[in-house]
Amino acid sequence: MGDFITKRSEDINQWYNDLVLKGGLADHSDVRGCMVIKPYGYTLWENMRDVLDRMIKETGHTNAYFPLFVPKSLFEAEEKNAEGFAKECAIVTHYRLKNDPNNKGKLIVDPEAKLEEELVVRPTSEAVIWNTYRKWISSYRDLPLLINQWANVVRWEMRTKLFLRTAEFLWQEGHTAHATKAEAIEETEKMLGVYAEFVETFLAIPVFQGKKTESERFAGADDTLCIEALMQDGRALQAGTSHFLGQNFAKAFEVKYQSEEGQEEYVWATSWGVSTRLIGALIMTHSDDNGLIMPPKVAPFQVVFVPFLHEKNKEQNEVLISKCNEFGTELKKRGIRFMIDKDTTKRPGFKFAEHELKGIPIRVVFGPRDIENNMAEVARRDNLTKENVSQDNLIDYIENLLGEIHTNIYQRALTHRTENTRECFEYDDFKKKIEVGGFVIAHWDGSAETEEKIKEETKATIRCVPFDLEQTEGTCIYSGKPSQYRVLFARAH
Amino acid sequence: MGDFITKRSEDINQWYNDLVLKGGLADHSDVRGCMVIKPYGYTLWENMRDVLDRMIKETGHTNAYFPLFVPKSLFEAEEKNAEGFAKECAIVTHYRLKNDPNNKGKLIVDPEAKLEEELVVRPTSEAVIWNTYRKWISSYRDLPLLINQWANVVRWEMRTKLFLRTAEFLWQEGHTAHATKAEAIEETEKMLGVYAEFVETFLAIPVFQGKKTESERFAGADDTLCIEALMQDGRALQAGTSHFLGQNFAKAFEVKYQSEEGQEEYVWATSWGVSTRLIGALIMTHSDDNGLIMPPKVAPFQVVFVPFLHEKNKEQNEVLISKCNEFGTELKKRGIRFMIDKDTTKRPGFKFAEHELKGIPIRVVFGPRDIENNMAEVARRDNLTKENVSQDNLIDYIENLLGEIHTNIYQRALTHRTENTRECFEYDDFKKKIEVGGFVIAHWDGSAETEEKIKEETKATIRCVPFDLEQTEGTCIYSGKPSQYRVLFARAH
Repeated sequence: MGDFITKRSEDINQWYNDLVLKGGLADHSDVRGCMVIKPYGYTLWENMRDVLDRMIKETGHTNAYFPLFVPKSLFEAEEKNAEGFAKECAIVTHYRLKNDPNNKGKLIVDPEAKLEEELVVRPTSEAVIWNTYRKWISSYRDLPLLINQWANVVRWEMRTKLFLRTAEFLWQEGHTAHATKAEAIEETEKMLGVYAEFVETFLAIPVFQGKKTESERFAGADDTLCIEALMQDGRALQAGTSHFLGQNFAKAFEVKYQSEEGQEEYVWATSWGVSTRLIGALIMTHSDDNGLIMPPKVAPFQVVFVPFLHEKNKEQNEVLISKCNEFGTELKKRGIRFMIDKDTTKRPGFKFAEHELKGIPIRVVFGPRDIENNMAEVARRDNLTKENVSQDNLIDYIENLLGEIHTNIYQRALTHRTENTRECFEYDDFKKKIEVGGFVIAHWDGSAETEEKIKEETKATIRCVPFDLEQTEGTCIYSGKPSQYRVLFARAH
Repeated sequence: MGDFITKRSEDINQWYNDLVLKGGLADHSDVRGCMVIKPYGYTLWENMRDVLDRMIKETGHTNAYFPLFVPKSLFEAEEKNAEGFAKECAIVTHYRLKNDPNNKGKLIVDPEAKLEEELVVRPTSEAVIWNTYRKWISSYRDLPLLINQWANVVRWEMRTKLFLRTAEFLWQEGHTAHATKAEAIEETEKMLGVYAEFVETFLAIPVFQGKKTESERFAGADDTLCIEALMQDGRALQAGTSHFLGQNFAKAFEVKYQSEEGQEEYVWATSWGVSTRLIGALIMTHSDDNGLIMPPKVAPFQVVFVPFLHEKNKEQNEVLISKCNEFGTELKKRGIRFMIDKDTTKRPGFKFAEHELKGIPIRVVFGPRDIENNMAEVARRDNLTKENVSQDNLIDYIENLLGEIHTNIYQRALTHRTENTRECFEYDDFKKKIEVGGFVIAHWDGSAETEEKIKEETKATIRCVPFDLEQTEGTCIYSGKPSQYRVLFARAH
């Protein structure tokens, strides 16, 4: 390969950037903090979006679209939410440019086109949506209101990282309204479950489900649930959040409904979202020093055919390519995405490296002699092994292998997580283990003060109070005070 | 119906607004010029997008995503393009809000967070994309580059109209780069053809294809091709455009490639787009005084089942609903979208009016006696006729009927257009015919001056020089000068 990939052991951050850039997923742009999602990366996002969109619809939600801009007066209505996002907002103040009188061919902002009220480019859409819900909700018959939106949002990040933290990103945000608290809590939990299923079943990333502490909550939420994954660099990554918003937005925007008993009540709310950040998560969970490893279920191409073509032997090339097309037709019937590498100018070794860099799960190689022998070489991207397979059952073999690869990379990630999730009872030991990386399970006294101190001293945050952890009483790792919870600590992206 | 729809004969603009708002397609927002696309309207958009996205991919394009913001220095690089959009741009000047020291709980723009360079919210993406293409293109091997983007864009419109003209709208924009002029022109024409096919075959709207005059061209294009439709109010509507951009953007952004012969050449470009405006087009083409009429191929629901339910007869209701489910299963197998109206509180007449307002192409009604007789009543939305159909061949009947409805509404629109496309040889007659509405075909001397005069005096613009019109020499309707062209005039939305 001409493109050099930094090894993980040398510099894991550079390795990540190399994969994103050289793997063709995204590119830097000249717009501060914003990236370009390239065709290969966007196809991956489309595949992820299509699956998740189906899951969101199957749980009773429909899509809609709300404005990009939030007038400042709406933005500030829910105070905690406003406070949480005020420091990272792009603000539109003018609506026109004009010719620069001092500089021909250049434009300046027209001072006469100043907006009476500034517009915030949405960092999240609760404000604009709840301001709309007030018009749509008047009776219990209008509830529940179960709406999702696919959109771009902007949060002015000072230190950006491709996919993981960009000023503009793509996401979906669900916003639901309910008659009762219980129903809203149920929805919050249900959608967290949908996210966990999506991320584990389709992206092959194991996650912990849990609840955020108060200081890590979404601004304006009564409770934030989350899924947390462990990356290869030992850092945790928040992969999705689902918020129980209580009646905070209903009160800020005066959204009331008349109950079946005829009483005026404030509505209960949830919101939940996942973003293009998940692409960063899957890269950093599965890939290796040879490049990307795409989870089979969302891979842009699940199979690549590399027939041995010779620049000069056109007739033979046609036979080989027509064989690829034959297999392709069969794969297509089973909904398997493939590509055929028809380039006659590159050597096979170069092509193999390229497809490995791109992370295509299965490579199928054959030449004229293989056709005679009715065989093909099938290579797995996940463990780089090869197998000679009879062409008669190649299609079945591929279909099964895709499932096997999914299971293997999921298990590998799970093993990595298990090996890097450590329990801890002493603060000195805790500090060492945090330094090593991975999750650390430890008792915490429940105070924001302790949480903050630990963060200052170790850079570790409480990722969540995990649902699946049996909760026994104990002693706080930091303060020595009695503790009700064991929580999940880690340094995070 | 509780919701009153203004008649077309009374006030066609109010009729249009009533359909959009009461039909549940969209809602006004508190954000100036921006609308909310409601679930029913967004589902329609999703269906349109899915079809067009497939057609765009089948012609060799892939999707990608570019930043929302365009730094001012990039925006102004292609001068004509910049000049064309400068007057209608939302400008981001700051990246932070802070607490208002004089007004507790309120926020103000933080003057210390002023951007060094202002960002334009994209009104179209040529600038940001061609600035990126410079990095991606160096050799003829990188061409053609065939990329499409689905995105939101913002153009600061002073007089807005739901779907037809909003400050923010959703669209797709294709941006392609080619080695030769001929290939770029071919692409421009091909994509216009794709739009024409999409709009006629899926939205059932007949269109004229043609070329814009110089003064109606896209800012920065060497040529703009367009499809033009005729609305029920007698006004034309530009439904899509495809631009041959020459080397204008390549020169502005220094995008060159090395040809097979080893020479440095500027790249040739096209761009093309359609938007949520098409929803306005289909509403105003097909609908009537009872409400919307959805083109079957993109209708959110193609069929609605209205079983005669009685609030108190639960057992019988179950039988009827289970029958609906049976039919539904069969429809689903054929990819036909349906809903079942299970409401037991509303009278059938009310329900019928509601489904007519929503424009669902086919209504299927039956009660207990119909089940005994093995019959159902099938009502068409397009012509409001009803037919009793045996339940044995109901599914086939529905499938055929959807095709028939498509053909009927297309033919109806075509007849309307034919009856309202008039040829004209004298300016007095021209003015009368423009006043009546519809397209007027007339000779034009080719000068921008004449075009402008006619526009001033009659409010009619040249919609295009249509491809399908045989071009004979003649005399300009306005100046009396010799004319090479007959062109299509109309007042337009």
